Amino acid sequence: MGTEIERKFLVKGDEWRSLGVAEIYRQGYIANYNGRTVRVRVVGNQGYLTIKGLTTGSSRAEFEYKIPVEDAQELLETLCDRPLIEKTRYKILMGDLIWEVDEFSGENQGLILAEVELETEDQNIDIPHWIAEEVTSDPRYYNVNLVKNPFKP
Amino acid sequence: MGTEIERKFLVKGDEWRSLGVAEIYRQGYIANYNGRTVRVRVVGNQGYLTIKGLTTGSSRAEFEYKIPVEDAQELLETLCDRPLIEKTRYKILMGDLIWEVDEFSGENQGLILAEVELETEDQNIDIPHWIAEEVTSDPRYYNVNLVKNPFKP
Repeated sequence: MGTEIERKFLVKGDEWRSLGVAEIYRQGYIANYNGRTVRVRVVGNQGYLTIKGLTTGSSRAEFEYKIPVEDAQELLETLCDRPLIEKTRYKILMGDLIWEVDEFSGENQGLILAEVELETEDQNIDIPHWIAEEVTSDPRYYNVNLVKNPFKP
Repeated sequence: MGTEIERKFLVKGDEWRSLGVAEIYRQGYIANYNGRTVRVRVVGNQGYLTIKGLTTGSSRAEFEYKIPVEDAQELLETLCDRPLIEKTRYKILMGDLIWEVDEFSGENQGLILAEVELETEDQNIDIPHWIAEEVTSDPRYYNVNLVKNPFKP
């Protein structure tokens, strides 16, 4: 297993868009239960099944497994809460960190979030100038909560 | 994915015990949410992650994946509801059907259940004479419910 340590931010301007490589992410939640989430994701021709524990600070237990894309599609269609989350993820390398900027579509159109995964909770990071307010601890921006309460700009 | 079609029964006597090959099963539930369950199981040196949909009649969508046993142990210890389910499963071949007899220990000690997996809901089966009452539709005997409401003989 891993522990995911992650900080999350809002984004300003448009410059980030030209810095990254974009891929479409489609995901849904089989369960959001006792602080645990079970997520299905499709990226390209690969499916993923991901279990996460309760978030404490910016850390969270995470177990991720590759699954056949056909299974993932079927799980999304038949066993996930509505609406599904659809977003374009831009991966941007800055120094030795990978920033992931998610531009949401569908029900959450208009929302853009940047995430960066860290080695330790107190790791110093250089914040790119296209990064705005930090929202790491704001549950409104958890993807699982964007299902029931989509973002309204 | 598969559809699991299964009938479940109580058991009488002790004869079944000598007919099967026994293995220890340890399992728990990460989620029991909107009729979907996410189960972790350890059998021998193998871990399994299993997602099941709502039961209709004796059928249920089922997606099962092998995962490393170390992950499964950690999921059982840290992300599953208490108590865990512990049972010895006897697999018994009768004709072309495999009967699975589960003898529960731990919180559900005293409970013995037999299950048989079918190809179709209306498949004719020969019922062994050590099989008693059918409990397919009785939610008290769903393993996920035996976590919160253990069997009391």
